[in-house]
Amino acid sequence: MTVEVSRRRLLGAVGAAGATGVVLGAAGGAAGYAAAGDGPAGGTALSAVGSASAPFRGAHQAGIVQPLQARGHLIAFDLTPGTGRKEAIALLRRWSAVAEALMAGKPAGDGDTGVALDAGPCALTVTFGFGASFFDRTGLVDRRPVQLEPLPAFSADRLDPRRSHGDLWVQIGADDALVAFHALRAIQREAGAGARPRWQMNGFNRSPGATAHPMTARNLMGQIDGTGNPKPAEPDFDRRIFVAPGGAQPWMTGGSYAVVRRIRMLLDDWEKLPLAKQEQVIGRRKSDGAPLTGGGETTELDLDRTGPDGRLVVPGNAHARITAPEQNGGAAMLRRPFSYHDGIDPDGTPDAGLLFIAWQADPLKGFVPVQRKLDRGDALSPFLRHEASGLFAVPGGPGDGEYVGQRLLEA
Amino acid sequence: MTVEVSRRRLLGAVGAAGATGVVLGAAGGAAGYAAAGDGPAGGTALSAVGSASAPFRGAHQAGIVQPLQARGHLIAFDLTPGTGRKEAIALLRRWSAVAEALMAGKPAGDGDTGVALDAGPCALTVTFGFGASFFDRTGLVDRRPVQLEPLPAFSADRLDPRRSHGDLWVQIGADDALVAFHALRAIQREAGAGARPRWQMNGFNRSPGATAHPMTARNLMGQIDGTGNPKPAEPDFDRRIFVAPGGAQPWMTGGSYAVVRRIRMLLDDWEKLPLAKQEQVIGRRKSDGAPLTGGGETTELDLDRTGPDGRLVVPGNAHARITAPEQNGGAAMLRRPFSYHDGIDPDGTPDAGLLFIAWQADPLKGFVPVQRKLDRGDALSPFLRHEASGLFAVPGGPGDGEYVGQRLLEA
Repeated sequence: MTVEVSRRRLLGAVGAAGATGVVLGAAGGAAGYAAAGDGPAGGTALSAVGSASAPFRGAHQAGIVQPLQARGHLIAFDLTPGTGRKEAIALLRRWSAVAEALMAGKPAGDGDTGVALDAGPCALTVTFGFGASFFDRTGLVDRRPVQLEPLPAFSADRLDPRRSHGDLWVQIGADDALVAFHALRAIQREAGAGARPRWQMNGFNRSPGATAHPMTARNLMGQIDGTGNPKPAEPDFDRRIFVAPGGAQPWMTGGSYAVVRRIRMLLDDWEKLPLAKQEQVIGRRKSDGAPLTGGGETTELDLDRTGPDGRLVVPGNAHARITAPEQNGGAAMLRRPFSYHDGIDPDGTPDAGLLFIAWQADPLKGFVPVQRKLDRGDALSPFLRHEASGLFAVPGGPGDGEYVGQRLLEA
Repeated sequence: MTVEVSRRRLLGAVGAAGATGVVLGAAGGAAGYAAAGDGPAGGTALSAVGSASAPFRGAHQAGIVQPLQARGHLIAFDLTPGTGRKEAIALLRRWSAVAEALMAGKPAGDGDTGVALDAGPCALTVTFGFGASFFDRTGLVDRRPVQLEPLPAFSADRLDPRRSHGDLWVQIGADDALVAFHALRAIQREAGAGARPRWQMNGFNRSPGATAHPMTARNLMGQIDGTGNPKPAEPDFDRRIFVAPGGAQPWMTGGSYAVVRRIRMLLDDWEKLPLAKQEQVIGRRKSDGAPLTGGGETTELDLDRTGPDGRLVVPGNAHARITAPEQNGGAAMLRRPFSYHDGIDPDGTPDAGLLFIAWQADPLKGFVPVQRKLDRGDALSPFLRHEASGLFAVPGGPGDGEYVGQRLLEA
């Protein structure tokens, strides 16, 4: 299945590679796993979907600025009794080695399950984070960032502790479900006796090529989501999303904090609202994400505009108004979610919603102030239920010869 | 995101459209939902992934011979008390209307949730079937095919009745997860008060473009799966898969019987087996699916060949031997599965495996004899657990002006 990528797209992709950290291999780049040579007869060229790859090494871990992937797995682990700093070092070494191999489209080593055979890396990213409890268990309390202080409680929280928190967190994303599953199993295998899964969740986004509008993502409410995200090209992007040098915890330089929330959408209620009401709740048009005050998806909201009835066109409790950066002292986070759908509950309602993942240099300047404001009167809140929560310190990307977290564990 | 499809691929696809029933719209065909014109500014051309569509009308329902899709939903419904034949007619009319619209890439009508906005049909198929209990509840017992007699019990069965059977069954598949979810919600909505979900399952396959080998699918054990499937080009394909005219139930002409099994894979056990042992269990090489007696994926097994030690090269209990058509009096079914992964159990083992869906003109000549043989000594059985089961009569495709099942309900 040879797909030729149009010149414009390829140039666009190459031009953006610096910002998004994804390399399209269609023009002779990474052929990966599928090039092992032992596969079935047939074509050997991978499409842009199969051959896209993200770098394991660099200033930041992959899986933060890369485009949304079609399939995702989140898994948290707790260290087992007897696992201390030494064993954690060995664990992060093993995980780093397997992540680097898989992200390059190579097998996970001896005992590879073969599930990703034939496929390219498919934009696989594997991202590692540390929860607050990790530092107690490894004798590293003095290196715990203050940013890992517990998040405040919110009134919409219905948190299940068994699906929240965790000593370690791994985010896996790929544009192919089998490639993602393969990576998940390899990470679980390499955990060995040192760490035990605490919770695990699956999510998804659009498949590459399903839409002609790659800049927008929709969630399961049908809304365009992520329009207001900071853009890597913006001058203050790095400052807002990544920890700057010179902080209290040098090992976090280049890192970021991930707020993870399983947000169930009460779709049976939401879908009963007429379109016009839904658009009032959000403050944007459903069709194209444009503000109710006009323009296109990326036009700024005119928050002061009133209609002929004297009322605000974007209502006071509209979700887009409350989350607008100019309403939050410039607070910004990079939301990079997966939708989830775990079937139906016994009463027939869908267990579906958003695996909300927000990235920021400091949760107290990103997620927390925005969520506090939403908590006080967001028109969308009655249709959402936060069912699980996690907060993880995600260190910078490993340099040559390093493993992820080395500057924490061995500095 | 414009992707130009190579001339060779396009010609190949057009050449095969008669057999697989999928039309690639990249060269000016169905633009679908995304062409509604009200979307965000940007490209308007859909890729081959987005624009592929399957026909709603024809001799057979879509979702049987079409290529595996990246995402699937299975949902079974029970009629509610008070729903009889008349209400079932109205239900199947509503379902047919929404399935036809969605498969053409159009909205589901007023109240469309918008989740598929921007996307093309993405090869969406919606397939409807009737369970044995449907005929009692609608006073149509004389039209119940003998083929819906309960399947025999097998020793590996650990069936959960709450996730088995059902009056009605709907299979949804698409190459985009949001398009598939959108269709699932539309089908649930149109069920109205007439039918209530009994169970619902989610599955997946490779994303288009993830591999350069489109003829093969792998399952979560890493095995190539489906090699022995009957091919539409074979002269006896139609006779084996579809009900021929002149049978005891004329309304089933052009239809097929779907055997649905949720087969959990005991992956923690399987992955501990060394590669050579796994290949003995299957009788094929993992890398390329070739028989242990040599050749490539599609080479026939040499079932009589012995090795230097005098033993059969393909062991007597190898899965590929037991399921070989020549070992089953030519019994054949078209397996068109989705993998599933519903996270992890509390003990950390993955709840993952295969949503096995097998199509045949008569289950007593397809699934049943093969499964009986497997039950008596398949080397793979210790690694599998059948957790749910269903058997459904899937009528032929609707003609012009018909709804699905009309020849059953109104003949």
